[in-house]
Amino acid sequence: MILRQFYIDGPGCLSYLVGCEHHGLAMVVDPDRHVDKYLELAEKLDLEIIGVVDTHLHTDHVSGNTELADVTGAEIFLPEAAEATLEHSPLAAGDVLEIGNVRLTVLPTPGHTPESISLLVWDVTRGEEPFAVLTGDTLRVGDVGRPDASQPAELEGLARQLYHSVFHTLAELPDSTIVYPGHATGGSCGKGGGSVRLSTIGYEKRTSPIFSLRDEAAFVEFVTTQLPERPANHDRLRELNRRGAPIVGVVEPEPLPLQDAVHYLARGAALVDTRPKAAFKEKHPHGAVHLELGPTISKRAGYVFYPEETIVLLLDSPEDYETAF
Amino acid sequence: MILRQFYIDGPGCLSYLVGCEHHGLAMVVDPDRHVDKYLELAEKLDLEIIGVVDTHLHTDHVSGNTELADVTGAEIFLPEAAEATLEHSPLAAGDVLEIGNVRLTVLPTPGHTPESISLLVWDVTRGEEPFAVLTGDTLRVGDVGRPDASQPAELEGLARQLYHSVFHTLAELPDSTIVYPGHATGGSCGKGGGSVRLSTIGYEKRTSPIFSLRDEAAFVEFVTTQLPERPANHDRLRELNRRGAPIVGVVEPEPLPLQDAVHYLARGAALVDTRPKAAFKEKHPHGAVHLELGPTISKRAGYVFYPEETIVLLLDSPEDYETAF
Repeated sequence: MILRQFYIDGPGCLSYLVGCEHHGLAMVVDPDRHVDKYLELAEKLDLEIIGVVDTHLHTDHVSGNTELADVTGAEIFLPEAAEATLEHSPLAAGDVLEIGNVRLTVLPTPGHTPESISLLVWDVTRGEEPFAVLTGDTLRVGDVGRPDASQPAELEGLARQLYHSVFHTLAELPDSTIVYPGHATGGSCGKGGGSVRLSTIGYEKRTSPIFSLRDEAAFVEFVTTQLPERPANHDRLRELNRRGAPIVGVVEPEPLPLQDAVHYLARGAALVDTRPKAAFKEKHPHGAVHLELGPTISKRAGYVFYPEETIVLLLDSPEDYETAF
Repeated sequence: MILRQFYIDGPGCLSYLVGCEHHGLAMVVDPDRHVDKYLELAEKLDLEIIGVVDTHLHTDHVSGNTELADVTGAEIFLPEAAEATLEHSPLAAGDVLEIGNVRLTVLPTPGHTPESISLLVWDVTRGEEPFAVLTGDTLRVGDVGRPDASQPAELEGLARQLYHSVFHTLAELPDSTIVYPGHATGGSCGKGGGSVRLSTIGYEKRTSPIFSLRDEAAFVEFVTTQLPERPANHDRLRELNRRGAPIVGVVEPEPLPLQDAVHYLARGAALVDTRPKAAFKEKHPHGAVHLELGPTISKRAGYVFYPEETIVLLLDSPEDYETAF
């Protein structure tokens, strides 16, 4: 069995390639749009990517499912309850995906979103016990996914579903089951386990601040209050993932000619100055918004601008585009 | 807490950077000699490397401990029983290494070698339970390290120690403890868990072929018979790691001038032709030994040549040196 974790700086999303060396087959779970890394690993390990699975409709990044399916011919799988309109095979409770000697089984774990599923990972050569569980955004290391990701109006109902998913579904797995979340928890070594990107059911049950909230009411109170602001692009991203993102292919960014920049700005585009603070303070174009370049810039932009706005970036050098993208 | 695994193709060695973001401190466990990757990660995460720990004197690769200590000023830690002669701090049962909010504790697990230790990893912000155990070569995924690595003459005694380490020391840890081995197990999805590079105590106890050998005699029989041949350089590497490898720094390989190659060959150096088999078959220098370029070439060379022999490599292009090195 092969099980590899991928991380993208900035949004902190985690994705997985699960495969069987023996049969030369693999699936990718919760891919982001930078799909080269999955293709490269599959080629290196001589694996054919036969499936792409999303545990839910993501609100913080565009799924790479259509992109990967386009290149590899892989089948796209999505939770039935997502009511996605792109071409896909729906997944319901207990469904099984076979990848040679590896098996994924579907465990509904709603709460972060109504359709959220977790995927149990079995190595059938090792016996009848799950090796790991891919929890999507339901259970993170020392944390859970926010229940207002999809329908803020249904907050309390989703929080109750999340309680059930965490305390009654995931907590019933063997202690030894490795927890591979769909999202890393940033921050320091305090609450949330710092930046460790995996855990186990037993370790979470006994040491997570989340599992110390045994009482449903306390849990609901905890996860529905003091929520960080929802970036304005969440609903748009979710809708994009429901319909299927257009295929982009390999993008080679090119600098915008000054005339084009002026053209866009004259028609109301926003100008974002990404240079260091000192440079911005010294001098900057009239009306420019300062969002310093860094891995979280797309998230910070989501707080400041409406999703439909056109943005012109002022960069220090063309290479900075990679970070801003 | 930060806990990152590194892998090197070929020998398949796994090493770890364990750190605390909050305090900006880290240690590296079982480093190989290509230390740039540890330094780069530490720089990226703004961590000071304050310690380098080896779980035992490795026989299959040169430790990067002296190299890392030279660059960072980190303290070198080695098991007391290794009787190492390089400058280091000895580790004994129960010793504690503090890395900010992260703690490593020493658990002797002899058998692969007499001095082998495992390191329990604790995140003190999460409570009194180990998060993981770095098992060195004692316990691998679906396997154990060979007991003839250091003293083939002591094979049976070491196998009995290994049984005790696996069944009585490591098996007593919580099921949920993540097992991070010092070595990946290659091969297909059959015995040994394929190429998954981590597991848990509970999963190994219930599904590993090793743990199905409950009886000490059966275990000893299994691990002492049908052992793969020991490469001739094992003893030399162990001795090198005991004394401390000389600092190499960054090596920029340069092609050997023909006159120098002739000089070495005239004095008995071996000539290894690393080109593809077809090219070798068509034509090759008189007396050349064919070892095709690939990640295991250094191990294969260890089977063919005595450790003290000088080797001249015939490569297709200068870039191939990276693989051969």
